[in-house]
Amino acid sequence: MSQDIIRCKAAVAWAAGQPLSIEEIEVHPPKAGEVRVKMVATGVCHTDAFTLSGEDPEGVFPCILGHEGGGIVESIGPGVSSVAVGDHVIPLYTPECRECKFCLSGKTNLCQKIRATQGKGLMPDGTSRFAKDGQPIYHYMGTSTFSEYTVLPEISLAKVNKAAPLEEVCLLGCGVTTGMGAVVNTAKVKAGDSVAVFGLGGIGLSAIIGARMAGAGRIIGIDINEGKFELAKKLGATDCVNPSHFDKPIQDVIVAMTDGGVDFSFECIGNVKVMRAALECCHKGWGESVIIGVAGAGQEIATRPFQLVTGRVWRGSAFGGVRGRTELPEYVERYLKGEFRLDDFITHTMPLERVNEAFELMHEGKSIRSVIHYAPEPA
Amino acid sequence: MSQDIIRCKAAVAWAAGQPLSIEEIEVHPPKAGEVRVKMVATGVCHTDAFTLSGEDPEGVFPCILGHEGGGIVESIGPGVSSVAVGDHVIPLYTPECRECKFCLSGKTNLCQKIRATQGKGLMPDGTSRFAKDGQPIYHYMGTSTFSEYTVLPEISLAKVNKAAPLEEVCLLGCGVTTGMGAVVNTAKVKAGDSVAVFGLGGIGLSAIIGARMAGAGRIIGIDINEGKFELAKKLGATDCVNPSHFDKPIQDVIVAMTDGGVDFSFECIGNVKVMRAALECCHKGWGESVIIGVAGAGQEIATRPFQLVTGRVWRGSAFGGVRGRTELPEYVERYLKGEFRLDDFITHTMPLERVNEAFELMHEGKSIRSVIHYAPEPA
Repeated sequence: MSQDIIRCKAAVAWAAGQPLSIEEIEVHPPKAGEVRVKMVATGVCHTDAFTLSGEDPEGVFPCILGHEGGGIVESIGPGVSSVAVGDHVIPLYTPECRECKFCLSGKTNLCQKIRATQGKGLMPDGTSRFAKDGQPIYHYMGTSTFSEYTVLPEISLAKVNKAAPLEEVCLLGCGVTTGMGAVVNTAKVKAGDSVAVFGLGGIGLSAIIGARMAGAGRIIGIDINEGKFELAKKLGATDCVNPSHFDKPIQDVIVAMTDGGVDFSFECIGNVKVMRAALECCHKGWGESVIIGVAGAGQEIATRPFQLVTGRVWRGSAFGGVRGRTELPEYVERYLKGEFRLDDFITHTMPLERVNEAFELMHEGKSIRSVIHYAPEPA
Repeated sequence: MSQDIIRCKAAVAWAAGQPLSIEEIEVHPPKAGEVRVKMVATGVCHTDAFTLSGEDPEGVFPCILGHEGGGIVESIGPGVSSVAVGDHVIPLYTPECRECKFCLSGKTNLCQKIRATQGKGLMPDGTSRFAKDGQPIYHYMGTSTFSEYTVLPEISLAKVNKAAPLEEVCLLGCGVTTGMGAVVNTAKVKAGDSVAVFGLGGIGLSAIIGARMAGAGRIIGIDINEGKFELAKKLGATDCVNPSHFDKPIQDVIVAMTDGGVDFSFECIGNVKVMRAALECCHKGWGESVIIGVAGAGQEIATRPFQLVTGRVWRGSAFGGVRGRTELPEYVERYLKGEFRLDDFITHTMPLERVNEAFELMHEGKSIRSVIHYAPEPA
């Protein structure tokens, strides 16, 4: 196991609201229970942009953003046993320690083992492995994939099949798993069920893929940007609806289209008004709505309690309800079997130097996912 | 089958906000698919008071209130096959037709077969069986148990074991089943689960009984009226909490008491602020909150969506999720086996003439249930 400090390239977020800056930084060696990973690729996600904007109450600067990566274990700290040098791994912003109350419950994927330090941008021992000119730089979501090398706790790594191209399966580190998992794990959509997906970005499109994989009968995609309808239909949407074309609330439109409402709906935007519409378009008696999108700080959802008393269920999903170390490798296997494709999501690829361009493309609605490629994988 | 008009005593609600008036009315014979029932007993419930207050948007006057009854089949209309003259029955404000989309789904008890006419105070053919001096009087919740005789659709009757005293099991027609069923049917509380019950009226106390029957470990009763704590503890509450004794929100108190929150909570009041507290006292990752109480028209529940995204579930329950014709007879059998008692709920008994006194006792918080006794059951 390496005890060397690695000097490498990273995109540093010095302060909220400013572009990232490409810097040579120091990545310290992994301590006990930690792993240093050489990144191969990372997606650029809205959550990175949300934190960079300064609206994330947990955002601390300077930090290294990025949480949708794929890489190769470079070195391990003392006591690490579940991964070895050379293993292919996907960083997990939701770890799986298998020993906290949450992991042991069997009811949730929200491991809380390192929640406190991760939320402060630190490793579990309360320090950082990143520095520039002797000054520490904070971690982000426990992952910090916008760096050629990063350090993570062992419990924050899913070991995946080396046959899978990390440039594609890195997307399983966040968006795609979040959308597919919400449908398959959280909602447990069954064959023949009707589904409404609000918002056709990366998460919404992944929810559509999940619904198609589950055998859903009707899959309704909803977005005000009709440019997204073609891909949504290619991936499995049976209907696409633009709410701006109607004088009545979109929930009423969906209820009318589906003889009383859908069996399941998914909010993939983070808009509290849309969350209400998603609940209220569910079928009386049994319809369930799953909130996936992350709303701005302090915003609230509301509805009449009658909506719930008459049988609708309101729930949420984080990282698709997926326990990362246990279930993410299975998602990679399903990908390798051809059950779903990821190339449709990757609209742009670029080197780390162009990471700010990836944020611009996202803000302008011109990308689904931009993927940063680091060095090519060794043959 | 009788084709006679019966003249009998009933408590008529002539208009919103006025006391009920004891009148001799006409009860017309049952038409096809209908059943005329001689009432033996009926509870007086908050929902009757809610409609009488004029706040119920579906309230129509003049009507005959009452929906928590027990009686004996007096005559049947053409085509009725599931009950016979002399059968003991509990009227169902939530019918079970076994052929509508809702019944056939197997996912809900909210049969919609006669929803439209029932909501207008009419029998399924669009007319009333009640009249006074030739003027029709409306039905209420499809049951109208504040009359010596009433007429109901066949699908609105649960046939129950004649061994059960109708003066007690009439409470299974609403409150007790609503509370117990929410715990057992809707939430499916398991042995060892922790439970919080907000509001210790008849519904809340029934929820406590349900939690005890399910083997819940910790059962926390919450009410600002400490006079209710003794009975709550007798019925199974392990802790009772008065929110007025704390400077912090009651959800924070419960979370602190339970190392992170309860597995299940039940709102048994109809207060939208309490509904929020009930959700937010649930455990991150898996806690589920069930709304049982009925809020005033137009009121809304609210919370931060983060509460749901981090694993809490918000749902509701109507009539305890119980399919009345199929499952209510089973509740009566469990009562007969001694699995639960009903006498603790019955704080007052009185003849129909004193029905207004029952409303007063309820408004003053002096009763759990007043039960109206009609003629004694034949020996």
